[in-house]
Amino acid sequence: MTIPMPTPALEAYLDATAERRLARYLDLLRIPSISGIAEHAPDCRRAAEQLAADMRAGGMEHVEASETGGHPIVYADWLHAAGAPTVLLYGHYDVQPVDPLDEWEAAPFEPIVRDGRVLARGASDDKSNVSIALSAAEAILATRGALPVNLRFVFEGEEESSSVHLEPWLTANAARLTADVALVADSGFFAGNMPAITVGLRGLAAAEIHVTGPFQDVHSGVFGGAIENPINALASIIAGLKGPDGRVRIPGFYDDVVALSDAERTAMAALPFDEEALRAELDVPALVGESGWTTMERRGARPTLDANGIWGGFSGEGSKTIIPGRAHAKITCRLVANQDPTRIFELLRDYVMEIAPPGVRVEVVAMGGGRPTLTPHDQPATRAFARALEATFGQAPVFVREGGSIPVAASFESILGLPVTVMGFMPPNGNFHAPNEWMDLGNFETGIRALAAFFDEFAAHPGG
Amino acid sequence: MTIPMPTPALEAYLDATAERRLARYLDLLRIPSISGIAEHAPDCRRAAEQLAADMRAGGMEHVEASETGGHPIVYADWLHAAGAPTVLLYGHYDVQPVDPLDEWEAAPFEPIVRDGRVLARGASDDKSNVSIALSAAEAILATRGALPVNLRFVFEGEEESSSVHLEPWLTANAARLTADVALVADSGFFAGNMPAITVGLRGLAAAEIHVTGPFQDVHSGVFGGAIENPINALASIIAGLKGPDGRVRIPGFYDDVVALSDAERTAMAALPFDEEALRAELDVPALVGESGWTTMERRGARPTLDANGIWGGFSGEGSKTIIPGRAHAKITCRLVANQDPTRIFELLRDYVMEIAPPGVRVEVVAMGGGRPTLTPHDQPATRAFARALEATFGQAPVFVREGGSIPVAASFESILGLPVTVMGFMPPNGNFHAPNEWMDLGNFETGIRALAAFFDEFAAHPGG
Repeated sequence: MTIPMPTPALEAYLDATAERRLARYLDLLRIPSISGIAEHAPDCRRAAEQLAADMRAGGMEHVEASETGGHPIVYADWLHAAGAPTVLLYGHYDVQPVDPLDEWEAAPFEPIVRDGRVLARGASDDKSNVSIALSAAEAILATRGALPVNLRFVFEGEEESSSVHLEPWLTANAARLTADVALVADSGFFAGNMPAITVGLRGLAAAEIHVTGPFQDVHSGVFGGAIENPINALASIIAGLKGPDGRVRIPGFYDDVVALSDAERTAMAALPFDEEALRAELDVPALVGESGWTTMERRGARPTLDANGIWGGFSGEGSKTIIPGRAHAKITCRLVANQDPTRIFELLRDYVMEIAPPGVRVEVVAMGGGRPTLTPHDQPATRAFARALEATFGQAPVFVREGGSIPVAASFESILGLPVTVMGFMPPNGNFHAPNEWMDLGNFETGIRALAAFFDEFAAHPGG
Repeated sequence: MTIPMPTPALEAYLDATAERRLARYLDLLRIPSISGIAEHAPDCRRAAEQLAADMRAGGMEHVEASETGGHPIVYADWLHAAGAPTVLLYGHYDVQPVDPLDEWEAAPFEPIVRDGRVLARGASDDKSNVSIALSAAEAILATRGALPVNLRFVFEGEEESSSVHLEPWLTANAARLTADVALVADSGFFAGNMPAITVGLRGLAAAEIHVTGPFQDVHSGVFGGAIENPINALASIIAGLKGPDGRVRIPGFYDDVVALSDAERTAMAALPFDEEALRAELDVPALVGESGWTTMERRGARPTLDANGIWGGFSGEGSKTIIPGRAHAKITCRLVANQDPTRIFELLRDYVMEIAPPGVRVEVVAMGGGRPTLTPHDQPATRAFARALEATFGQAPVFVREGGSIPVAASFESILGLPVTVMGFMPPNGNFHAPNEWMDLGNFETGIRALAAFFDEFAAHPGG
């Protein structure tokens, strides 16, 4: 199979416009589009408007900042590649908050360029991927007058504040969002800055457990020994959910888990990963988890059960000798394909009720969730993107499973019925969500070439 | 053995002075001597001064409101019974707070007399026992000019706010507090208003468990599966401290427990006790506890382990998908004779460290405690008081083990080296520490005769 390379004309255009392109990216970074902080709502709108203007200038059509009830979704398309496949490319223009401010080397919204890096909030997550996508489309349109594929851009402004308006918007606009693949451009490279494609994202099932004992906090001397203690009961419930081997004990919990293939395990084992560095970074005595799996497998390809919070009784200074009336915990399970959040909640609830000790009343409340995604390595867009990465970065990508969740990836699958390829060019350890976020300008520039190559490659081989 | 009855002269005096005596008791109840609320400090001092004045008027000597650094301890004595034993009688003039105020039928410090009861904060706990003791001594001195025993009164003003100044005061005054027995007059009658002597009080050992995981709260997606969760770890520790049979699993925990004799178990089983009424009152699905023991045994004669509070991670509304950096719990064990609080803490600490899962750091911190007391049924003062109760109330007392703690009882043993008899005349369910506290005026009046009879009886039979 021929691996496409950037054409001389495209390369010449990109060379000639590098300075202007960097300036436009830095301008976007100067807008403090923090979606989770209300006073930055006008900044989010400014970022959306700048993106819309840039897309219009770059030759995209039907550009709009679409109202959602929250921050706008910026939409644009170019649909003149008759007979060619259609790519929907998703990114987000909003960013995380910046505290603790005093740990930044420079003001987070005054980007500085140094040693081939751009330092700013959003430099990688996700204004890098958004800017790369814009630049790739613009360069092709400028040099050829046409794209090899049909293209839709969907740039969200609420990814960092839980995307509440995205699913309704996708549902409302499903008819006009036809495509052959959704590229979720919100990911990055692997350790050592290796090109990577994210093939797995975990889902989530959340619950609260409420344990009720006596009608109010009662005297632990007068009643101690006569009644069950809600905290002790809750502890025994939580302890009962996992064995000392780290395995979740809920019957049926693992039933729908898609087994890792030997090839996947071999591939994961071959990835560079420094366990001791992770242990030291987190400052824990040891890395532990479900027996029979490596740390990388446990983080990306195995489901988990974690208590996120627990409270009950007296937590002030000193002692208060009570048996509390109530105790509570928040529990979340990270899910992997093909676990269903609703089914997992029901299994959890039923098992909690089964192991709850007598003498207390127990209630388990669903707190929502999200589906996991697992992309086949061999779907056409993923294969095309892999070849484009190898051609431009000189190295075949690794396929990684991320432990976190990008719920929107599952939304494109479930609402639009699209296969999803999760990709992007952020450097590993780019300090996303943390002080001193940065982007590698080499990834940025080569990323533009990689995406352009992907469009050509996917147009040439839409079936894989 | 001759059971003494009130002499006709004593009875005539008590009859003649009933109205004045009740007025004095109600005056004491009108003083809001809430020791735990700083603004009531002047009220505590007023109550101390009224008691001192009443004792002087009643013929007691060396009366003083002794400074402690907190609320005064009111001391008085009468020491002219050459060759007779000396009784140290302890009570307290401070009371609990009154909230929730709107659940009171009448203002808590405006006592009302109705249907043979006095309704007021402190009516039973402990101004009843204090007033009874004063009245008994006064009546004997008024009618005979002398007491049959030597008598010391020690009335504390900080029992309801943890008695911080009592032990130092006892230590500082040990030389002048010589006696043959300490009567701790801070207890009451048994269900059905049966005369009772408290022969057992539980002790306490308190601890905090601190579990530390990653250096801060971390993302449960990125790190879930790789590290131990401090809340899950704490839950497994707490769950490991007790078995499903309700027995504490800490090795050595029960080693020093004085076994209940068959006679004691038979006597406890014979006491009237309505399990269903207790279950309904507490609004729990079932009474549960250590297997092999009755509810009454578990409450009074068996040690316990209860979590009093637990906290860690996120407890706000909604979900936060973290693995928390820390989790904490407060634990107390109620102890029975002859468990030692320090030893029990050490056993708890060592076992927690032993069962703590790998992957977290665990710390167990001692939070103080108090020794249990177990009074022999057959010590001379207890036997004398039992006979006095039977003679005056017409019914032999039951011997009960209370689940709560009166640490001062152990203090009299350890600091002054005195045998202790824990007694009093409060009605069961007198709403101590709760709204609508009340005292039975029958108990009050007969209590005076019983205490007077005890003085005679103990003087007559100081050896039992």
